[in-house]
Amino acid sequence: MIKAGIIGATGYAGAELVRLLYGHKEVEVVWYGSRSYVDQKFADVYHNMFQLVDDKCLDDNLPKLAEEVDVIFTATPQGYLASVLTEEILEKTKVIDLSADYRIKDVATYEKWYGIKHQSPQFIEEAVYGLCEINREKMQGCRLVANPGCYTTCSILTAYPLVKEGLIDVNTLIVDAKSGTSGAGRGAKLPNLFCEVNENIKAYGVTTHRHTPEIEEQLGYAAGQEILINFTPHLVPMNRGILATEYATLKKVTYPDGTLDYPSEEMLRAAYDKYYKDEKFVRLLDPGVCPETKWVEGSNYVDVNFIIDERTHRVVMMGALDNIVKGAAGQAVQNMNILFGFDEKEGLDLVPMFP
Amino acid sequence: MIKAGIIGATGYAGAELVRLLYGHKEVEVVWYGSRSYVDQKFADVYHNMFQLVDDKCLDDNLPKLAEEVDVIFTATPQGYLASVLTEEILEKTKVIDLSADYRIKDVATYEKWYGIKHQSPQFIEEAVYGLCEINREKMQGCRLVANPGCYTTCSILTAYPLVKEGLIDVNTLIVDAKSGTSGAGRGAKLPNLFCEVNENIKAYGVTTHRHTPEIEEQLGYAAGQEILINFTPHLVPMNRGILATEYATLKKVTYPDGTLDYPSEEMLRAAYDKYYKDEKFVRLLDPGVCPETKWVEGSNYVDVNFIIDERTHRVVMMGALDNIVKGAAGQAVQNMNILFGFDEKEGLDLVPMFP
Amino acid sequence: MIKAGIIGATGYAGAELVRLLYGHKEVEVVWYGSRSYVDQKFADVYHNMFQLVDDKCLDDNLPKLAEEVDVIFTATPQGYLASVLTEEILEKTKVIDLSADYRIKDVATYEKWYGIKHQSPQFIEEAVYGLCEINREKMQGCRLVANPGCYTTCSILTAYPLVKEGLIDVNTLIVDAKSGTSGAGRGAKLPNLFCEVNENIKAYGVTTHRHTPEIEEQLGYAAGQEILINFTPHLVPMNRGILATEYATLKKVTYPDGTLDYPSEEMLRAAYDKYYKDEKFVRLLDPGVCPETKWVEGSNYVDVNFIIDERTHRVVMMGALDNIVKGAAGQAVQNMNILFGFDEKEGLDLVPMFP
Amino acid sequence: MIKAGIIGATGYAGAELVRLLYGHKEVEVVWYGSRSYVDQKFADVYHNMFQLVDDKCLDDNLPKLAEEVDVIFTATPQGYLASVLTEEILEKTKVIDLSADYRIKDVATYEKWYGIKHQSPQFIEEAVYGLCEINREKMQGCRLVANPGCYTTCSILTAYPLVKEGLIDVNTLIVDAKSGTSGAGRGAKLPNLFCEVNENIKAYGVTTHRHTPEIEEQLGYAAGQEILINFTPHLVPMNRGILATEYATLKKVTYPDGTLDYPSEEMLRAAYDKYYKDEKFVRLLDPGVCPETKWVEGSNYVDVNFIIDERTHRVVMMGALDNIVKGAAGQAVQNMNILFGFDEKEGLDLVPMFP
Repeated sequence: MIKAGIIGATGYAGAELVRLLYGHKEVEVVWYGSRSYVDQKFADVYHNMFQLVDDKCLDDNLPKLAEEVDVIFTATPQGYLASVLTEEILEKTKVIDLSADYRIKDVATYEKWYGIKHQSPQFIEEAVYGLCEINREKMQGCRLVANPGCYTTCSILTAYPLVKEGLIDVNTLIVDAKSGTSGAGRGAKLPNLFCEVNENIKAYGVTTHRHTPEIEEQLGYAAGQEILINFTPHLVPMNRGILATEYATLKKVTYPDGTLDYPSEEMLRAAYDKYYKDEKFVRLLDPGVCPETKWVEGSNYVDVNFIIDERTHRVVMMGALDNIVKGAAGQAVQNMNILFGFDEKEGLDLVPMFP
Repeated sequence: MIKAGIIGATGYAGAELVRLLYGHKEVEVVWYGSRSYVDQKFADVYHNMFQLVDDKCLDDNLPKLAEEVDVIFTATPQGYLASVLTEEILEKTKVIDLSADYRIKDVATYEKWYGIKHQSPQFIEEAVYGLCEINREKMQGCRLVANPGCYTTCSILTAYPLVKEGLIDVNTLIVDAKSGTSGAGRGAKLPNLFCEVNENIKAYGVTTHRHTPEIEEQLGYAAGQEILINFTPHLVPMNRGILATEYATLKKVTYPDGTLDYPSEEMLRAAYDKYYKDEKFVRLLDPGVCPETKWVEGSNYVDVNFIIDERTHRVVMMGALDNIVKGAAGQAVQNMNILFGFDEKEGLDLVPMFP
Repeated sequence: MIKAGIIGATGYAGAELVRLLYGHKEVEVVWYGSRSYVDQKFADVYHNMFQLVDDKCLDDNLPKLAEEVDVIFTATPQGYLASVLTEEILEKTKVIDLSADYRIKDVATYEKWYGIKHQSPQFIEEAVYGLCEINREKMQGCRLVANPGCYTTCSILTAYPLVKEGLIDVNTLIVDAKSGTSGAGRGAKLPNLFCEVNENIKAYGVTTHRHTPEIEEQLGYAAGQEILINFTPHLVPMNRGILATEYATLKKVTYPDGTLDYPSEEMLRAAYDKYYKDEKFVRLLDPGVCPETKWVEGSNYVDVNFIIDERTHRVVMMGALDNIVKGAAGQAVQNMNILFGFDEKEGLDLVPMFP
Repeated sequence: MIKAGIIGATGYAGAELVRLLYGHKEVEVVWYGSRSYVDQKFADVYHNMFQLVDDKCLDDNLPKLAEEVDVIFTATPQGYLASVLTEEILEKTKVIDLSADYRIKDVATYEKWYGIKHQSPQFIEEAVYGLCEINREKMQGCRLVANPGCYTTCSILTAYPLVKEGLIDVNTLIVDAKSGTSGAGRGAKLPNLFCEVNENIKAYGVTTHRHTPEIEEQLGYAAGQEILINFTPHLVPMNRGILATEYATLKKVTYPDGTLDYPSEEMLRAAYDKYYKDEKFVRLLDPGVCPETKWVEGSNYVDVNFIIDERTHRVVMMGALDNIVKGAAGQAVQNMNILFGFDEKEGLDLVPMFP
């Protein structure tokens, strides 16, 4: 039984960590950090945890917390962790950061897209990008995990096998993503009011959303080259879920008989199977079945699939996940399981809830 | 490890049984009955179960099923079970019926409100009304459980302590209930289309809803007298959840000093505590906190509370539950746990999902 | 063509006034008051008005505004108008107040329920409670209209004929009301975030909601006696709409043959017809049809109906309206039409939008 | 005052025609055709029209109807009109067809994508594709209007100026569209149930949706060449609204100083202004403002805008409309206005409703 602390426990991602860790057999949460609700009972902020969590919220004291716990989850605004993280903390405890502070290796790219100066670039190099299915092996001995963004987890996993296998022209990649509103956080902002979101859909952050360079960096590693993509997020009137619809032009391949032609449906499925067949949390759907966010709601699954357009020689890739589970808290728990050698599925045996 | 069969596995309540029993350590589902989807994979109907359930749907053959399983759940239309149930079946297996066929002891009342002739009234007497918190003791040796309705579970548990303790005038009881749309089932009917339900609220079945006599019978037992109430259900644009707002006039009580007056807040809380303090699944909220359906979504909890109106001497009681968990499948599993001597919470350690 | 100014034009009710007055043939809006958005284009705050309204928002200067317009609409927080209204203003222009400042005749009642001191009680007496269908005659020569609350408009009109005709015991009246979220205003508050409201229903303000004394006062006039009721509002995951479900015990009446008995369905319909048959904006639905908020969305209609419960001798009355039209801006325009002698329907020929 | 008949008056598009024509000064609806509801009052099917429309629904008798009215609207399933239309009918009345029967000039393309044999290809040639802003001039003397599809109206108008002016590489065009659920019609089908749509988003008809060739044909005319695009529709949990997000690679242009480079923001805005500046119903939003479906809800507007991605040299075009107004009934009324020489805006002065 290890001990865990959560900084930012009363945001939606932090509260989901509480929900997931409550059901985890190997972890006990001993620190519910929340600047906004210090000394208030956590269950008075999230009444769903009434009678389940009796603790009060504590302030953010990372050095003290590092003394007391084996792992710290930071579900905090951009720049926070970078401004307080020290070598001493990392020597005493592991840190799983749900913010973007250590996701991007190139500090200049980070500072450009996020518009803030990075306060501790010395830790960027050692941080492991915690996309479990891709980087599981790099976690050995890791002290600092950069937990991927919600859009990025969905966008990358949806396209990864075809990028990695060189089956698509990566510079034609366009990611049109749709997210539920919990992704906007629990801050009391006018655009997130019920009446502004309900019965409405819009794009936002067009050409400027911060998850763009994160997707480009990770898919660039898979492609073995730098890439530029278009990424457009949309706000959907639902609580949870991200759907990524991705478009790319297929690259011709040499068939066994020597002919050069576009890859077949079977080839693409083989590519997906190669990477995901043994993955518990990535489900390649049956041919022709389009992922729906509702089918993964509340769970750590990513459902993916693709459809070839024979007319345009493009492939339409689709992926769906729950943005605060696999897109945030669930993946953080999965990363913790890997770091500590627990069963990777522990605490994540969540069956999607329908309807 | 016992074996279970589900008749009506592809309705919303049946599918929730599949979800809950999937995580239950003592039960294996071996029969996914669904007339409409015979020979189709269950996971092709409910894609959330993709890679979790590989079985195909089977037809409804109760006698055969009774040979193979320890318990049968029937999540079927009214009248179905009554038309096929036999002594032979009950001798071989236990039956937990999620329909209303055996809930009402007076067959004439059943036939009047449901408008159908009861095909097997001989089993009504032995059927136990499966409201676990109230009737737990009656389950010993029971072969047939009448699982309560969703509205009734919520309506009864919300008012039960005050009725049982004689603190309200039961004939002034008015239940104004609001339900998510999953309560209407998965049938393809025009009034349940998205565009008809979304951005809309309405009452329905006013003075005629079939859960009325069920509430009256059960609360009548608690009151020790026959009672008549008003029950008005409403359809709310959400998937899950029932909120019952209940009104009743307080009855004066004799205080220790001999004065006759309306009961105090403390007296009412003491009444709720008397019946629910040790109940896992009924949570009496802190004073002044109103239940919200979102705080129990996906879980087996019922959140209850009350507020006294000093001006009118009425008490407003409120209760919230998830209509397909505690209001249907969750309570059915809880009943099964009691019947078979399992831990009553087994398979039901579901933390409410928020948001 | 008269000139109008709106104070609080960027709240939901204020913006609805803009929408309605845009289509009104006799009025021109010349002042879009909004403290929060001074000097910003109104259409940059409400993009639906892009290319329709070019004006910028102005600060709140009531004395200056009174010089320039024939009528001022105040869609402002409680207490604002009371703190700035003067005899000079009322001598120059008419004021239609969408806040509660002058709705309640007894200043002590106002101060108790609203928790603020009334700054200009001298105007309370002359203010006409602008429930058009009831108080149309009192508007002659009126300078100050207290536009009714959203819940109150719905609650009163639903029960009015039976109260006025003495067909129900008014002290048994219970109003269980359900509102869309626009009623909570456009303030950026956590409880009104999409993720907090969506997939959720709750009661709030139980026994303490400020519309309670307003309903009691107005229905008290109709009843010819002081009355106390229970009023419970609920928050529903939809933008617009209020549904009031009201319960009261019927009073026995003397039939022509001398027998004393509960009133018949026909008697109740006759009572509704007596008051509403010639009313454009109140629709008594056909027998058995329950009002739905969607059927009046975007329009100035109130749909009402009732169902008798022969078992309990109660009547269930139901009313539905759009809370920001008939419940706020629409009724304000209707009041303006009456004040200025325009066709009462001018600008309000809005056909409900479905779906 | 002309007379109109509606075939398919009880579908969502047909009912919206009823709503719009109710407010039209030059038209009287004399035939509410609805096979499913013959002899039932229209207002019993759409209660929003209670007390506004007293007529009963009639069967579909096109020859008889042609004798009685000046214009027939057919809001009917694919293939219906083609199977009953005759020269005699067209000699007597004008027909505005909201189905796809006469939208596509190449009958083979129609038959391939729709999977049905065209029963009256002889009328395809004379049918005018009723995208008002583009084809207004072609309407002179026209007898048969093929009213465009909802997705196509939005997709075409969003990209038209850039295609027409040769500013984008049309074969890189990708349309990712999101629609509210009313687009799926009022048929009682399981996928359109509230619980299946709510809290969910999915793509459907990927690479196979029938609006694809319609977009390709019309944009092909603008481009002066045949084009192939990707079009992917998504189902969004809202009643009304379509948002199209469109991607295309910019084509270099020769600047006045002779340099060859990608077009500037100003050039693209000039292109949009060229075609839309004088259009009432197409609103080019201010730079950087992304269209939202809520801002056009209930109105005949299309809001469009674009953002250049300097990194990828693509332009992201966005358009939003109300699928049953400008995407169906509103455009049909606009077409009627053009056909009969009415003010093109008559009956369409609908201010978008927010929230």
